[in-house]
Amino acid sequence: MITDFQDWARSRQARIETFLDRRLPATDCVPESLHDAMRYAVLGGGKRVRPLLSFAAGELSMADVERVTVAAAAVELIHAYSLVHDDLPCMDDDVLRRGKPTCHVKYNEATALLTGDSLQSLAFQLLAENCLADTPQIQLDMIRQLAQASGSRGMAGGQAFDLASVGKTLSLPELEYMHIHKTGALIRAAVMLGAYCGSSLNDVQQDKLNHYAKCIGLAFQVVDDILDAEATTATLGKTAGKDAENKKPTYVSILGISQARELAERLQSDACRALDSLGERAIRLRQVTDFIIERKF
Amino acid sequence: MITDFQDWARSRQARIETFLDRRLPATDCVPESLHDAMRYAVLGGGKRVRPLLSFAAGELSMADVERVTVAAAAVELIHAYSLVHDDLPCMDDDVLRRGKPTCHVKYNEATALLTGDSLQSLAFQLLAENCLADTPQIQLDMIRQLAQASGSRGMAGGQAFDLASVGKTLSLPELEYMHIHKTGALIRAAVMLGAYCGSSLNDVQQDKLNHYAKCIGLAFQVVDDILDAEATTATLGKTAGKDAENKKPTYVSILGISQARELAERLQSDACRALDSLGERAIRLRQVTDFIIERKF
Repeated sequence: MITDFQDWARSRQARIETFLDRRLPATDCVPESLHDAMRYAVLGGGKRVRPLLSFAAGELSMADVERVTVAAAAVELIHAYSLVHDDLPCMDDDVLRRGKPTCHVKYNEATALLTGDSLQSLAFQLLAENCLADTPQIQLDMIRQLAQASGSRGMAGGQAFDLASVGKTLSLPELEYMHIHKTGALIRAAVMLGAYCGSSLNDVQQDKLNHYAKCIGLAFQVVDDILDAEATTATLGKTAGKDAENKKPTYVSILGISQARELAERLQSDACRALDSLGERAIRLRQVTDFIIERKF
Repeated sequence: MITDFQDWARSRQARIETFLDRRLPATDCVPESLHDAMRYAVLGGGKRVRPLLSFAAGELSMADVERVTVAAAAVELIHAYSLVHDDLPCMDDDVLRRGKPTCHVKYNEATALLTGDSLQSLAFQLLAENCLADTPQIQLDMIRQLAQASGSRGMAGGQAFDLASVGKTLSLPELEYMHIHKTGALIRAAVMLGAYCGSSLNDVQQDKLNHYAKCIGLAFQVVDDILDAEATTATLGKTAGKDAENKKPTYVSILGISQARELAERLQSDACRALDSLGERAIRLRQVTDFIIERKF
């Protein structure tokens, strides 16, 4: 079963890479440096956790894999844009990402800024220019969800809250608020968009999936905090220990390592319980969940 | 007729202001500083040229004014986000916009970055969450058009080209390429999105309108270059003479003032000729055209 999952994950990661490679403007297309930077920021790296979640949710709703590829790529473009902007000097000021120099180090700040902006636009373009759902109305709802998950009451809002919290003591609910927005919103969108590509789930199933998506979004961040505290820069491919260095409140700084681990496990069981009523087709979601919780980088 | 146009323009500007004020998240909504900055960047300023174009094009296609308001607001949010990012130190490094301190001066760079990012997301959210066209398929096409106009082969691409051209000599076609993307693409989207809110124009009419939109997009920039060279900072509400100071190629630097004026007039007649076959309902577009060409700030 594990081998089967690894094969599945690899084939989906390859599929998303091929699609993004084909869909991102070529480097000989004007303005060349911008397109070069966009490709640099997106291709050849990353675990593609969000796309894997979209593909797994798509299997649940029996979605056409071509449709899910586009939806997953859109979510991944939003994620990639957020990393480029997050690494800028005025934000986290980081020089290393996925084992390579960050976008503004490799190019320059202005190019990195425009790269992030353009990747965001391209995400919405992808969702609008392809047929992704059984009706265009569902597709409009997918766009609404991704926009909401990305904006000031989703990911960008979480980043703003994060910035404002540097050096402060956050309560556990405040930390949870921050991460539900900063990371959770987009992870949830990845799950829901993948599912919407297929025949509609009924309301009860949608609620279950939504609850699953919330749990796994938070669990992802708890594990991220643990990895940042424990792993080395070489393993992570990005600067490790940044959170402590930046005096950022994390699950580890508030709960300690062992309680943070317990929380991750609790969220994992919660997520899996939500999948229980969704039948055999939820198997991939279960596997991606384990992959997220047990990853080492 | 002039008074009539002024009344019309004022009522539409008030309408867009009211809508944006209602639709932007309140400042007491977490994260407060981000929402405050978003409102600061969007409300209470600007000529609202793009919304006026949307409303005028909507009158051509007999569109419901409520629908056009949403589409126009989405275009204006993209415009506002581009100004916030364009003013950042790594871009134009400007301190004055619409007679007020720029967003990163009033808040800080990180907040300005996230403000622009969030405004872009909100633009697409608006286009997806409201019924704006006779079919959801047309609405998806509107989203596609705005995304394309904003991205690396539209506005953001034009800005990248602009940055790369500082201190260089551009040929007239290169300058035209730059402005068709940097300013023209979004202006064209403003026109087309307004029109799509109404009953579909036939293909010939759409082509005419598209040609009009291209001419007016370029004319807008030519006039902008003339104003930057001639006006004072007080009149413009933004730093005047920046282009020459930054050694940016402009229509004035390449053609000189009087030839640049002739070009603006030629584009104006071209634009108006394209409207000729569109009948009486094109009257507002004609008036907005004159307003754009004859503006003093």
